[in-house]
Parts: sequence; structure tokens; C-alpha cells
Amino acid sequence: MADRTRQEDAGPETEARIRESFARQGLMAHLGARITHVAPGRVHIALPSRPEVTQQHGYFHAGATSAIADSAGGYAAYTLFPENTEVLTVEYKINLLAPAVGDHIEAVGTVLKSGRTLTVCQLEVFGLQDDRRKLIANGQQTLIRVNSPAP
Amino acid sequence: MADRTRQEDAGPETEARIRESFARQGLMAHLGARITHVAPGRVHIALPSRPEVTQQHGYFHAGATSAIADSAGGYAAYTLFPENTEVLTVEYKINLLAPAVGDHIEAVGTVLKSGRTLTVCQLEVFGLQDDRRKLIANGQQTLIRVNSPAP
Amino acid sequence: MADRTRQEDAGPETEARIRESFARQGLMAHLGARITHVAPGRVHIALPSRPEVTQQHGYFHAGATSAIADSAGGYAAYTLFPENTEVLTVEYKINLLAPAVGDHIEAVGTVLKSGRTLTVCQLEVFGLQDDRRKLIANGQQTLIRVNSPAP
Amino acid sequence: MADRTRQEDAGPETEARIRESFARQGLMAHLGARITHVAPGRVHIALPSRPEVTQQHGYFHAGATSAIADSAGGYAAYTLFPENTEVLTVEYKINLLAPAVGDHIEAVGTVLKSGRTLTVCQLEVFGLQDDRRKLIANGQQTLIRVNSPAP
Repeated sequence: MADRTRQEDAGPETEARIRESFARQGLMAHLGARITHVAPGRVHIALPSRPEVTQQHGYFHAGATSAIADSAGGYAAYTLFPENTEVLTVEYKINLLAPAVGDHIEAVGTVLKSGRTLTVCQLEVFGLQDDRRKLIANGQQTLIRVNSPAP
Repeated sequence: MADRTRQEDAGPETEARIRESFARQGLMAHLGARITHVAPGRVHIALPSRPEVTQQHGYFHAGATSAIADSAGGYAAYTLFPENTEVLTVEYKINLLAPAVGDHIEAVGTVLKSGRTLTVCQLEVFGLQDDRRKLIANGQQTLIRVNSPAP
Repeated sequence: MADRTRQEDAGPETEARIRESFARQGLMAHLGARITHVAPGRVHIALPSRPEVTQQHGYFHAGATSAIADSAGGYAAYTLFPENTEVLTVEYKINLLAPAVGDHIEAVGTVLKSGRTLTVCQLEVFGLQDDRRKLIANGQQTLIRVNSPAP
Repeated sequence: MADRTRQEDAGPETEARIRESFARQGLMAHLGARITHVAPGRVHIALPSRPEVTQQHGYFHAGATSAIADSAGGYAAYTLFPENTEVLTVEYKINLLAPAVGDHIEAVGTVLKSGRTLTVCQLEVFGLQDDRRKLIANGQQTLIRVNSPAP
């Protein structure tokens, strides 16, 4: 894995597989999230600020923050999986470190450990405003690889 | 707390305060979630199935499951707080135990420990279909009480 | 599983397998921990108070609390496993709810969900003093089942 | 905090305060753990391999791994606290990434976010054997600052 994560490029097939899966996540489209970066073992997902993703004080809701963090980690794991496999989230834990404010937020999922069955990812979410980029949430996620059902 | 949680009713003022705060959570309305039960130290939030809340296999997205779990826990904590205070999620951890399927899902937030500064809640999410109710996610959440800014 | 956990008795073979494994955990003996209850999907481990298990204020160290909680959950999972399998902790999360004081503490591991590969347990730790039993820690744990190496 | 963590040295008073507190943790001495590095926002604790800290397969027990990780994070937070304050672990989550083997293991606690009330730390544990250093556990911890009781 070390060698693959040093590459900048996940390969066109992997990237296509991920973007196709992402496009089928109704929640991501409904929130307005989009994939902004795909590399081996790392995926970024951005979410613009708008009233539909807020909590009661007008900040990004922890549920929105978590949703893009969970997807970023899941797809980061998926970049290292062979074809005909699927990824499922087993569990994750996230600390909300600061009010989630900004023009948009960006979740970064990074594979810490890629095993045959289980993968562990680091989850980070940043708030971005003008030139500033601030860590607003940090987490850790466990994922499981399963074989795709035969078509 | 033990005595208060044995009550069935959170009191009209507490319930009004919670419903008003919930109505200001843009994300909850955007997802289609609604509060279905408020009691001292316990809040339920339901989310109907529809394409806007799914992941790539058509199940409820872990982000949607988590979002209503986080809000249910936050409001459960809030039922035990005095006026002029606010609740913020410090962190939570959630295990996705089974595919999140059903006509709707329901999150149940329950206060485990209510302290002066920190509150710890149990988070459960059930998938409901016809007469069946199945545990699909289980978690634990830490919240902090902060004073509201003066008006 | 529901039926098995309603039984009071894990069966003599399962209980022997667990007590034998526990006896090989050098840390448990070194801390002074002992298994106090084995049932299908549930194991209790007790740890008496003594200076060797404290933190800087004389309470039980979170590491001691966690160690018996982790073992209790692991063996709770193991009660439901077939022969020639092993259990490994994937991860756990624990909230320290109150100062860990008492004549002894007792960890209770309970299986929430038993799958083919992964098992999820609830972890509870109580402080016991005279007739009082107080919840001092609460957690959640993910475990994986692996086949034993051939002898 | 950024400036302080760039320093190499926590200051003699802070280091003395931490070593004195550590010396009062009965569990750390009983396990054979020692502090190996103190810097602002970062503390290392090492634990040599011996039968008293093992699980049933002879690896380091997750409870021992967690115990030094918890202490490393707690003292990392404490390096940034003013005098006459104490630190308590609110909760932590840890993934056991690989069998905990080696001549010794070393926990590294690093402050991610230092707030007035709450501090969040990253926890890493490495297995060391000869010249190799392998990440065997990774976690995240929340701590609270409390005022010391008047003497």
C-alpha cells in the first residue's frame, strides 16, 4: 500500500468506479456534496454552505459533517479494493472540534491500515473561508470489504 | 435524574423549547426527519425512506442514520438542561450493525449520565417495516452544556 | 442468538475454554482480575482495589478499567463462537462516567450483535462498595472472529 | 498552541509536574511503563514486553496498550495546562491495527485541539523491534480540565 499511496493518481478505472458509486448515493446529491479529489488511499468530499445543511445556530450540522466524512473514508478505502468488491462502514467515531463554519467544508478520508477484511481510515473535516482552512472535526473509521453479489 | 426520567412528560416548556430548536435545524427538515417523542432524558426522531437519504445500494446512508442519532441524543440531553443553555456535540461513535432498511428508521437518544458540564447519551437507531423493529445502529455520544449568549 | 442468551449457562465446554484462555492472559493475573460470571453472550470480570491499579488520585486507572472491559467483551463474544476460532478486538470506545472508586470494580461485556465475521459488544463497568453498585464507565466494542491456527 | 508545540522543551516545571504525577500512577509502575519524552502537547510512554502484560497469545494485551495510550494522551494535554489544574479522561476510542508485538511498545499522545475546558488528543502506539517501528494502534481521546482542590 505504501507504494500505491505515494502515487498521485488512483487510475482512471478506480476513479470511474468511485464516481459512479458516489453518483448513486442519493444523500450526497441531496446535500449538495461533490468529490473533489481521488488518490490511492485518499478521497476528498466538499459540501457548500446553505440553509439545508445547518443545525439550530446556522453552522453545518454534525450529521452533515459526519455524512461527508463517512463517505470520504469509505471511498478512500475503496480506492485500494479489487474489482467486484464493496465497502461497508462498520463504525466510526468523530470529534467536533470547532464550530463548523465556512463558505464550504471539506472532508478528507485517508487509509491508515488496509487489511484483507478490515480497513481503518482517518477522517478529517476542514472549514474553508477565503484563504483559511481550519480543522473542525477529526475521526476514525472501520470499514469491511465484502464481495459484490454476482450480476 | 432518575426521578425525572421516570416521568413520561418533559413538561410543555421543555418540549416547546426542543421543537423550536429542532425547527431551526435546516438539515432535519431537508432530510424529512421529525421528532416523534420527547420525555425527560429521551428523544425519538424518525426519518422516512426516500431516495434522497440513501447510499449507493439504496439503504439509508450512514450519514443520515448518524444525523438523526446525533440530534436525538442532543435533544435528549437538552431535556435535562436549564433554560438559557445550549447543547453542543463533543463527539460520538456509532456502529452500523445491519443494513439500514425499512419504511422508516427511528433514532432513540437516551441520557446515560447527566453532569454539570458533560452529558453522555446512548444512541440507538431502529429500522421499521410493518410490525418489525430491528436495531440497525448503536452508539455513544458526549455533549457539552454551554450558556446561551445574552439576547 | 436470542434464545442462547436467555440461557443462564454457557455450557461446561465453553466455560472451560474461556477460563483456560483467561488464565493465559498474563495481564489479567498481574492486575488481580478474575472472571465472576459466564453466560451465553455475557461475561463479568472483577478487579479488586489496590495501589497497583490506580491513577494519580488513587482511583482505578482508566487503563485498568478498560483492560477488564475489553476482556469481558472479548470473552462475551467468544461464548457464541464455535470451537477452533479465536477472537480479536478490532476497536473499542469507552466513556469514563464517574471516578472509578470502590472496594472493587466489575466489567460486564454483553453481545449486542453477533455476526459471522464481526461481533459488537456493549461494555459496562461498575464501582462496588458495600451494597452500592454505580456505573462508572460505558463503552462499545467491535471484535473479529478468526480461525485458530491448526495445531 | 502552534507556537508552543514547535518548542522542543516543555519547561522544567511542567516536566517535573508530569513526572511527579506519573510516579503516583500505581498502574504505570506495576506494568513497568516509563515516560520517554515530554514536549509541549506531546508525551511518549514506553512499555517493555514481559509476561505480565500479555493476552492469551503472548502479545501485549489491548488493555496494556490502551493504558499507556490513555496516560500518554492525558499527560500531553497536561503539558498545556496551567498550574493548579488536573486532567481527567472523558472518553477514548482505539483501533488495534496489528498484533502488538515487539521488544517494547511506545505510546505517543499528541494534542490535536486544546480548548479552555476540553482537549482532544491523537493516540498512537508503535511496536518496536530492533530497528523497526510499526503502528499497532491508533486512537482519539477527549479530556477535561478541572481545577485542583485547594491544598
